[in-house]
Amino acid sequence: MRIDVVTLFPEYFESPLRVSILRRAQESGHVQIVIHSLRDFGIGRHRVTDDAPYGGGGGMVMRPEPIFDAVAHILAEVPEAERMQIPIILLDPAGRRFTQEVAWELAGHPRLVLICGHYEGVDERVREHLATDEISIGDFVLTGGEPAALVILDAVVRLVPGVLGDPEAPRHDSFAGSLLEHPHYTRPAVYRGWEVPEVLRSGHHQAIARWRRMQSLRRTWERRPDLLLRAALTEEERSWIARWEAERRALLAPLLGEGTVPGEPSARSPDEECR
Amino acid sequence: MRIDVVTLFPEYFESPLRVSILRRAQESGHVQIVIHSLRDFGIGRHRVTDDAPYGGGGGMVMRPEPIFDAVAHILAEVPEAERMQIPIILLDPAGRRFTQEVAWELAGHPRLVLICGHYEGVDERVREHLATDEISIGDFVLTGGEPAALVILDAVVRLVPGVLGDPEAPRHDSFAGSLLEHPHYTRPAVYRGWEVPEVLRSGHHQAIARWRRMQSLRRTWERRPDLLLRAALTEEERSWIARWEAERRALLAPLLGEGTVPGEPSARSPDEECR
Repeated sequence: MRIDVVTLFPEYFESPLRVSILRRAQESGHVQIVIHSLRDFGIGRHRVTDDAPYGGGGGMVMRPEPIFDAVAHILAEVPEAERMQIPIILLDPAGRRFTQEVAWELAGHPRLVLICGHYEGVDERVREHLATDEISIGDFVLTGGEPAALVILDAVVRLVPGVLGDPEAPRHDSFAGSLLEHPHYTRPAVYRGWEVPEVLRSGHHQAIARWRRMQSLRRTWERRPDLLLRAALTEEERSWIARWEAERRALLAPLLGEGTVPGEPSARSPDEECR
Repeated sequence: MRIDVVTLFPEYFESPLRVSILRRAQESGHVQIVIHSLRDFGIGRHRVTDDAPYGGGGGMVMRPEPIFDAVAHILAEVPEAERMQIPIILLDPAGRRFTQEVAWELAGHPRLVLICGHYEGVDERVREHLATDEISIGDFVLTGGEPAALVILDAVVRLVPGVLGDPEAPRHDSFAGSLLEHPHYTRPAVYRGWEVPEVLRSGHHQAIARWRRMQSLRRTWERRPDLLLRAALTEEERSWIARWEAERRALLAPLLGEGTVPGEPSARSPDEECR
């Protein structure tokens, strides 16, 4: 797989690409990551890449020409038919939300182009006539697309076959199976008086698997009940959840009366309860 | 503001901290970012930081001692009363979701500690007895907390007073005001035949402000209707949205009949429509 990144700050990527998974993925030849400086495609002697916005207002807007030229350069050697298949992704807060599902989708392409926006914004013609996709990593404001590009690089690269040692590993992670992960424990068995749960030291594989599954369900139920709706659950697992819900309702009954009292603050969300 | 980051890969942060906003924020003295290598707190001659999980299974789990020791070292000079106020944040996919609201919340603290998880996971006792908060940047799986830490550093640091030149700037961004941003245009006025909208070149400030507001509402309505529910809208703006909705329903009427036909695929979401 090859990923090209177009950025005003190529230096930003230097150390992250030399470390951990991005280093290993490149060294093993599974992934090629190429960082392109937008400045190299800047206009005129001063390599201009931005200008004031039409219509006024503060901030600078990235000009279209350097971005179009950078992408043309990246795809110059690619045969026309293949070129149409390569996602050209603008990292933008208005884009579709990046999720593990999108990571799997992107990991299925042999090539990707990521364009990091900056300043106030990017000239709209890039969105309309160049980008084939727009992705946002979340509802927060970043100075530029660079941290978002690193997030996408990390999440996608680890899904490329051969990059992780254990080919089964990606499937065990949170979200891949639609549940949050169970708690992990390692040595020491007792730290500052806090013990590793007995069952994990029992050597009883079936009991351990059951405990982990229940913990995973319990944590998901507490913190991310929305994920339970998409999960494949057994009858027994549904009965666990039904019991937790019943216990929770009994606990909150004094607060809520029979139903919710209009105008009263409603029950704390599961998310608050576990903080 | 001071932010301490605990990580197995301190080198990861080298170049991002030397570039763009994180560099400027540090050089101007508004923010101090200190990266701590977990390896320095590793156990024994081999500086061990992880071990096999209790209960078996693949992957390695980060041991509790080095993390507790790193945080103790970071907070050693801080008076007890102040120490209790400092958020100690574990970056973890099961944490609460990072949003612009959380960014503002974190930017209000004089100090933060970010702990980057790695490998299969982090010993549960870190979550239970050390971290005061757990944050996830989204529903995707990263190899470690490092890219998430960079996202949080970027989003938080730019909100620290004095870091951005224009103190009003953070308020204009997407999400800060609960709407997506309007399109931006800069020179050239015509690029490859694609023109900048007339109104933006009119010099008519009121018309420009109105156009931008309508575009911002339109884009939010198309892509993120959920954000509209939290926005402060005028009567006229509500009437625009009502008109767009009516047009949309008219468009989809042949597909949907009078109501949605049970078992039929439902109308495409606004998000799909605009791709």
